[in-house]
Amino acid sequence: MKTIQINTKNRFDIVDITSQVQSIVKNSGISDGIVTIFIPHTTAGISINENADPDVIFDLKNIFNHMIPEHNNYKHMEGNSQAHALSTLTSPSITLIIENGSIVLGTWQNIYFMEYDGPRNRKAHIKIIKG
Amino acid sequence: MKTIQINTKNRFDIVDITSQVQSIVKNSGISDGIVTIFIPHTTAGISINENADPDVIFDLKNIFNHMIPEHNNYKHMEGNSQAHALSTLTSPSITLIIENGSIVLGTWQNIYFMEYDGPRNRKAHIKIIKG
Amino acid sequence: MKTIQINTKNRFDIVDITSQVQSIVKNSGISDGIVTIFIPHTTAGISINENADPDVIFDLKNIFNHMIPEHNNYKHMEGNSQAHALSTLTSPSITLIIENGSIVLGTWQNIYFMEYDGPRNRKAHIKIIKG
Repeated sequence: MKTIQINTKNRFDIVDITSQVQSIVKNSGISDGIVTIFIPHTTAGISINENADPDVIFDLKNIFNHMIPEHNNYKHMEGNSQAHALSTLTSPSITLIIENGSIVLGTWQNIYFMEYDGPRNRKAHIKIIKG
Repeated sequence: MKTIQINTKNRFDIVDITSQVQSIVKNSGISDGIVTIFIPHTTAGISINENADPDVIFDLKNIFNHMIPEHNNYKHMEGNSQAHALSTLTSPSITLIIENGSIVLGTWQNIYFMEYDGPRNRKAHIKIIKG
Repeated sequence: MKTIQINTKNRFDIVDITSQVQSIVKNSGISDGIVTIFIPHTTAGISINENADPDVIFDLKNIFNHMIPEHNNYKHMEGNSQAHALSTLTSPSITLIIENGSIVLGTWQNIYFMEYDGPRNRKAHIKIIKG
């Protein structure tokens, strides 16, 4: 298992970790298999999304705030229940396919760390399985 | 890795790909393990849902449109930010268990390609890991 | 593949299955790899969330009911379309990393069975892959 460090800058933040994960896959020397990325935090997640247009991120933040209010008389005393719900909905885990030594992604896809309660110092664990 | 082709017919569409994925698993000759299905698109996803009642699909479309408006002054110029958000929430990846040469599914479960920005020609990648 | 039984108590219920899954991993004797947990039901899911404060669960229920109404003239005759949608959004599958003979989780993370249409007798399937 390998671990990468991610520093988020805002309460809601999206950080591209594609090149870091691809490097770990390349350095493993494993040509074919799968890779599981796991986020050990309850107010963040891992996702795949559009790599071209920063407006997608802008819209995503507004969509999530429309879907789940940031403040709504939540009982949880830290007040970050929106972040816990978004973490559950995004999932803290994703498994991707490795072929010819690199992760298979569509033309417009990158791998993003999803921060819902930043800014914080975060981690992502990466485990490769030979297939 | 194997790839299947999927032609979606509507902007919001749900296509049952269970038999195609089960065929790939059977033809692999692998009796026990896991299978990762990955969708290389940012406005689609992969999911498991009820295989019996087409009304579930009808309701799902209305639920998603209630949850995230199709149009809402989105900045992303393609205007399909709802589709990007639903792709992130559904996830473009799922990993299932193989036992006795076939994918383990509950009585009411089938595997569905979730189209949020169709109609389009789409793909799903399938990778089997022996376990 | 191993299977655990879960008895849910309410329509919306969240059951901590961390120790049961960790036991299966420990008893497997596999030190490093991944584990896929799969829920064979269309109105339930599997998730990771905060293990400390029961108010997170209380808020999560209210957030999901705000996001997707429990009743809304759904066509599906069983009337549980909210549960089908939440199952799709949470996902019935998650893959976690095994290191040094146990599942890697953050300090505040536990593994939860998410019930959206209980009370019912439910199952979770567990498959370990050596890595």
